[in-house]
Amino acid sequence: MNTMESYLEGKWRIGTGKRTTLVNPSTGEAVAEASSEGLDMKAALEFARAAGPGLRAKSWKERGEMLRVMSRAIHAHRDELIGLAIMNGGNTRSDAKFDVDGASGTLAAYADLGVELGDARVLPDGEAVQLGRGARLFGAHAWVSRQGAAVHVNAFNFPAWGLAEKAAVALLAGVPVVTKPAISTALVSHRIVKILVDEGACAPGALSFIAGSTHDLLDHLDGQDVLAFTGSSDTGALLRGGKSVLAHSVRVNVEADSLNAAVLGPDVEDGSDLFHLFIGDVVRDMTQKTGQKCTAIRRVYVPRGKEELVEERLSERLAAIKVGNPSLDEVTMGPLATEQQLKDVRRGVARLETCARRVFGDPNVVSPIGEGTSRGFFISPILLVSDSPEPTDAVHTHEVFGPVATLISYDGSADAAAALVRAGWGGLVSSVYSDDKAFVKSFVLAVAPFHGRVTIGSSKMAGQAIPPGTVLPQLVHGGPGRAGGGEELGGRRGLAFYMQRVAIQGDRALVESILA
Amino acid sequence: MNTMESYLEGKWRIGTGKRTTLVNPSTGEAVAEASSEGLDMKAALEFARAAGPGLRAKSWKERGEMLRVMSRAIHAHRDELIGLAIMNGGNTRSDAKFDVDGASGTLAAYADLGVELGDARVLPDGEAVQLGRGARLFGAHAWVSRQGAAVHVNAFNFPAWGLAEKAAVALLAGVPVVTKPAISTALVSHRIVKILVDEGACAPGALSFIAGSTHDLLDHLDGQDVLAFTGSSDTGALLRGGKSVLAHSVRVNVEADSLNAAVLGPDVEDGSDLFHLFIGDVVRDMTQKTGQKCTAIRRVYVPRGKEELVEERLSERLAAIKVGNPSLDEVTMGPLATEQQLKDVRRGVARLETCARRVFGDPNVVSPIGEGTSRGFFISPILLVSDSPEPTDAVHTHEVFGPVATLISYDGSADAAAALVRAGWGGLVSSVYSDDKAFVKSFVLAVAPFHGRVTIGSSKMAGQAIPPGTVLPQLVHGGPGRAGGGEELGGRRGLAFYMQRVAIQGDRALVESILA
Repeated sequence: MNTMESYLEGKWRIGTGKRTTLVNPSTGEAVAEASSEGLDMKAALEFARAAGPGLRAKSWKERGEMLRVMSRAIHAHRDELIGLAIMNGGNTRSDAKFDVDGASGTLAAYADLGVELGDARVLPDGEAVQLGRGARLFGAHAWVSRQGAAVHVNAFNFPAWGLAEKAAVALLAGVPVVTKPAISTALVSHRIVKILVDEGACAPGALSFIAGSTHDLLDHLDGQDVLAFTGSSDTGALLRGGKSVLAHSVRVNVEADSLNAAVLGPDVEDGSDLFHLFIGDVVRDMTQKTGQKCTAIRRVYVPRGKEELVEERLSERLAAIKVGNPSLDEVTMGPLATEQQLKDVRRGVARLETCARRVFGDPNVVSPIGEGTSRGFFISPILLVSDSPEPTDAVHTHEVFGPVATLISYDGSADAAAALVRAGWGGLVSSVYSDDKAFVKSFVLAVAPFHGRVTIGSSKMAGQAIPPGTVLPQLVHGGPGRAGGGEELGGRRGLAFYMQRVAIQGDRALVESILA
Repeated sequence: MNTMESYLEGKWRIGTGKRTTLVNPSTGEAVAEASSEGLDMKAALEFARAAGPGLRAKSWKERGEMLRVMSRAIHAHRDELIGLAIMNGGNTRSDAKFDVDGASGTLAAYADLGVELGDARVLPDGEAVQLGRGARLFGAHAWVSRQGAAVHVNAFNFPAWGLAEKAAVALLAGVPVVTKPAISTALVSHRIVKILVDEGACAPGALSFIAGSTHDLLDHLDGQDVLAFTGSSDTGALLRGGKSVLAHSVRVNVEADSLNAAVLGPDVEDGSDLFHLFIGDVVRDMTQKTGQKCTAIRRVYVPRGKEELVEERLSERLAAIKVGNPSLDEVTMGPLATEQQLKDVRRGVARLETCARRVFGDPNVVSPIGEGTSRGFFISPILLVSDSPEPTDAVHTHEVFGPVATLISYDGSADAAAALVRAGWGGLVSSVYSDDKAFVKSFVLAVAPFHGRVTIGSSKMAGQAIPPGTVLPQLVHGGPGRAGGGEELGGRRGLAFYMQRVAIQGDRALVESILA
């Protein structure tokens, strides 16, 4: 069997002890195994930190060029990576492209940013300001690279994009990366790192990879290191409360649960382009990646009186979804990624059923197509309806990480819609579909403090809109409260996490020459 | 005896149970008492949050005008507040002015910023960017006010400025404040809140005040609230690891210990203006507020060969310090703020003496002038010299929060100076004194990732420099690692902590109209 190695201290290494088995979630077949037990995590972290000066000797532009080489290396192996994602991730070809092209695309976007930032190594922050009464004394702010390592702990759903989107920003900021994907779907991440190492795409030591658990790695973090995590709220809280993290004020970024909402405005007529956009976005963001997307739509709010119409339209579209082994071209939704995921989603649906009734799909009934699928982790798309939602209902408090959404009516006012959306207590993204500008403005401003991103669907945009579930490198990704309180990407905004903002105070000419 | 009340839910309230006694640290006399036991902290927090919509209905400019009224109200009671600071804080008149004028000055600076930001309520963040290929789809970022309350837990050393600098930023950002000063010196904070309440300076409910412990307040924080703390690293870690903080990803800002360094460049000659500036800054930032300043200079690095000269000059200046009851005009350094502080500083000096030898002052010998001072918490200024410093020495790891600094030599190179400064593992501010531009540039860039602020003293600036220990509202205040990883002030930068950055995605005209 294929044994996945870790890449630590500049060498591929196999752990000792009990190995974890990776499977094909469509068939339950074992496809690889891995262990990181016994590997020296302290040495690995120190090795990563020691690669920092070399990386930071490069200018923004040179680091950008490095990201370009990484992006191209991944793109050159696109078909192979898509194949691995289908096999180890249960991805359809389209799901896999979303992940793999998201990886190369985000690296390319940060490559462009590096070129734009040019030959310097420091990032000025605003204008110099005069201090005091004398005409010489000035203060200026700048972002400077942290001198530690970035530890990235990623989720199982995006083994390519998750690795690349975090690494792109850290590496451009001049901080070496130790990346740890969720083990269940790690073949894609592993292959990416192997490609990058084999092709010498990264600066030496700038990218390390853990195939398995981090063991005691996080106990060795210090005040110049950072920790970025994507996954559950519970694990996020655990990492944020870690002993070293607290003792050394280690920066932690968490992307966690999010009950993303889509709201249909009261003005949108059945059959209109905007109505189609809304239905299409909901179905895509429910079923893409089998609903295992932190930006997937979990709550669908429609004006009272339109529940039946929307229920009918969504059900029609969900009925057309072909569940099965995504190695078959006609399959449009693959399995969940793991057996545990299947259990969790079934349990989650039962929880939602305490406050909503199921109107499409059954968590225990599905007929996947393709060979060997009887041992796969398949589930049907599931739609529920909540008739009289309360803020404390499971629909507002529990994220079911699968192809599951709940339809909820509201009274047609922006305030009521916003109040229901806010009951999710912090999300990555919510969306509103309406051409009523006053409605849209009220809604967006009322939900904005609870979100990292809000998308607006309007008739003018129907032909060119990007669905809310698609994370773009130019815009921030993250959200307050339940969503973990983190922020990633957003162009140069994402660099801040890996840098220290410093004020420099003194003679103007001197301050400016230091920051040039 | 004067009983300090808390101002919660819009009323002055006295707690039950055992009261804490506040004393005059120059004489040990009791001056007031307080307890917040039995007060309903959950209700107080909810009341503060409920004041948010009223505050946020005001524009930037209107909130700025409110800060102006607050600033003026404090300034109008300047003499009274200075008197309280001398009596309850052991401040000299000059120390007290630094605190009280810092409070009104910071409020005034944020009042100006509010006026500058104008009639809007949202703060745009950068330009809108085109997304995708169509010419209409854009994304823009903006900061929007959080909808919770800001809990401010302040240190004993700045009962006026600490309250005001945090409140100015939170209130301008539209977030109501619950402020809790350290009880030992809280008379000044209490009086300020009383003045502001009596004069109706704040929006209703926008400022609450706890005279005593926060009890279960922090257990009720949620994802829209924020917690800002100034104090010890240990307490900072405790707050950051609090159950509600972790469960709801509550934003926490910590300003903690900091072993601020001052570095003399190899080019600076005895007797020069720059040498005088250096000596003056070190003495001021050692002894102002009896060294109880988070930005005080704790470590003094001088090129090898100049140790004796600097030791001599500093000792001369320290010998001229008049320790005593600051109600006497001739006194230039008052007592420490509490008996506990006196114990801690004596213990801290003993710790420093494990790696450095004492060359000026004795922690157990002092002859304060003024009546009743035999029961006061006085200490002499203390200078130590470390001949062969190691990075793990107490001088690099332990902050003694009093008029105590250690003189350390380095080989005259910027790299060596920076390496020693970095051994403090993160500070609020460090300073360098040199006219050698190459030396300054190397040093500043090498220490910048470990600091929130770096100040440069040069001959040109000698007449108009602001000492490193003075925090300015225009520049960020905070630092990574040991310093707590926080960031306050910095003009509009400080607003970010109280706001959520959100990306809005859609038709360009619509996105721009929402953010207008």
